[in-house]
Amino acid sequence: MMAREMRQQPDAVADTLDGLMPRRPEIERLVGSRRNLLFVGRGSSDNAATYGRYLLEIHAGIRGAMFAPSVATLYEAELDLRDTAMVSLSQSGATEEIVEVQEWGARHGAVTVAVTNDESSALAAAAQLTLPTRAGEERAVPATKSYLAQMAAMAVLGSALSHDRIGLDQNAVRLPVEVDRLLDERGGIDASVEALRDARDLIVTGRGLLLGTAQEVALKLEETCLRPVRGLSYADLRHGPIAAAGAQTAVLMIAPDSGPVIGPLVSLAGELRTRGVLATLCLGGDDALAATADIGVAGPRLGEALAPVAAVVPGQVIAECLARRLGHDVDAPRGLSKVTQTDAMRQ
Amino acid sequence: MMAREMRQQPDAVADTLDGLMPRRPEIERLVGSRRNLLFVGRGSSDNAATYGRYLLEIHAGIRGAMFAPSVATLYEAELDLRDTAMVSLSQSGATEEIVEVQEWGARHGAVTVAVTNDESSALAAAAQLTLPTRAGEERAVPATKSYLAQMAAMAVLGSALSHDRIGLDQNAVRLPVEVDRLLDERGGIDASVEALRDARDLIVTGRGLLLGTAQEVALKLEETCLRPVRGLSYADLRHGPIAAAGAQTAVLMIAPDSGPVIGPLVSLAGELRTRGVLATLCLGGDDALAATADIGVAGPRLGEALAPVAAVVPGQVIAECLARRLGHDVDAPRGLSKVTQTDAMRQ
Repeated sequence: MMAREMRQQPDAVADTLDGLMPRRPEIERLVGSRRNLLFVGRGSSDNAATYGRYLLEIHAGIRGAMFAPSVATLYEAELDLRDTAMVSLSQSGATEEIVEVQEWGARHGAVTVAVTNDESSALAAAAQLTLPTRAGEERAVPATKSYLAQMAAMAVLGSALSHDRIGLDQNAVRLPVEVDRLLDERGGIDASVEALRDARDLIVTGRGLLLGTAQEVALKLEETCLRPVRGLSYADLRHGPIAAAGAQTAVLMIAPDSGPVIGPLVSLAGELRTRGVLATLCLGGDDALAATADIGVAGPRLGEALAPVAAVVPGQVIAECLARRLGHDVDAPRGLSKVTQTDAMRQ
Repeated sequence: MMAREMRQQPDAVADTLDGLMPRRPEIERLVGSRRNLLFVGRGSSDNAATYGRYLLEIHAGIRGAMFAPSVATLYEAELDLRDTAMVSLSQSGATEEIVEVQEWGARHGAVTVAVTNDESSALAAAAQLTLPTRAGEERAVPATKSYLAQMAAMAVLGSALSHDRIGLDQNAVRLPVEVDRLLDERGGIDASVEALRDARDLIVTGRGLLLGTAQEVALKLEETCLRPVRGLSYADLRHGPIAAAGAQTAVLMIAPDSGPVIGPLVSLAGELRTRGVLATLCLGGDDALAATADIGVAGPRLGEALAPVAAVVPGQVIAECLARRLGHDVDAPRGLSKVTQTDAMRQ
């Protein structure tokens, strides 16, 4: 199922963009007057929100923050959110915690926007504005096409609220084409699977607009291969965790084809080599980065603002191959269910 | 050095509280009119900031968010921060990235507050308000007493801006006493060290007011023992990473002695047991949690709002013992330096 759903990603992106791009004036009307955006999600939805957060701050000049659900659900804090729009992401729209946070947000004055794959869900029903993703039914536990559709929705949100529109209009047709190309691109995949198979410590790193992608690749590897994997900003990696990197560590760097994070990633690759890590891999990046890493895998050619919509794809391909190689059932990993209720356990 | 500096923590907390509690009116005057707080820090400072963030949202009704430094330093975003106070934490006050973010914040209209252990540092010199921590000179690479002093500063900040003052006045004398007691408390420490020594996968988990403590305990274990350790909210743990937890996984739960996170932690301990993890440990918590976990270690008796100031201590003790047991030099871990320049590598 996961492999088949990955193949449906070009359509999921194209259909979601088709549905949402015409709704940008509506987004602008509702959200445009709010000076703060709070993003809420768990797992893959949280990783998609991370892209939205950076995109809005960097390209739209609107403050974006990741909301901590417990502030609403466990502590019932009293915050004034009358200058805030709350953007809640949930594939199913049925995760009770997220629905509860959205209700709390509305009660405290926020405009509420739901990004969900189910227009008839509780989350959609309660939101002031629903931005439906059009990924179709997703059955594999590891989210793939629903995540890409959420990323497309984040790009539309960013485009609706930014002056430069982040180049979405010019690239809307190319986005699904790039996703398709990356699904077929095999260069470096086998070597990556080989290198990761032998690693005891896996780190996926990126920064800024691609931090969420690094976290999502880490989550995919972890969910499918049932190994602990960390997704970290390279800045945080250098402030501590790098000390533990050694001969059993493999580091995947997620990079755009241009922008300010490439230089630091080239330096990081050099430093990791000095520390004698097992392997450095780069997904994406430019020629300089490819020349520094042990293994290079092609990434999207879309510029840094839109690259995140497609950049996870090589990571998904590697995760799926590695999991099969390790003999795991990628569609239903041990003890994970499709809709996770964070606080089912709550008393 | 690390062991000696840990011993100096009761004084660091007492001296910092003595210095800062009288300055609460000044904090209120400068920061009280701002509706948003942005926290900035790296490593241990980031973990202390996480406490500040939850404390302010939950107890003062002021929106708190963790700022992503790259938004300022790499992307030079244009955000309007005229309703914002930016709180920058740095032990040395010399981390260029943090100084640069603070300058950017001031340029964009934020009131700037520096929390640093060096009043003559660049960070302090440029801030509108400096809240000095009084930890004395810290030489070991793993931050201990400077982190506790930062936590005390966060408690003062929360107390200055909240109506209930978070009970700091009544507990200011008890805080260093609790730190001292926890440094001497040996129950469960040896068993914890034994259990962690055999684990290949270490997870430290907490939530809400104690999430930052969980992240700090993870960082201490990682820095001193040179093993990968993850610090995660238990909500995030359940959304993916728990699938990889198994017979080689040890999970440390960081818990207050009361509050809404205890119930879910009890359930988590049960679920982890069902999954057959190597060991569950709880640092703090109540009797119900101690009865569910394999190993229990005493935590602070301070209530949930102030517990974080002392709750890291058993984690430090365990990290230091485990590292010595593994034959590591805890004072100068391989390849980490005291002041980390995130972007020394920046082009």
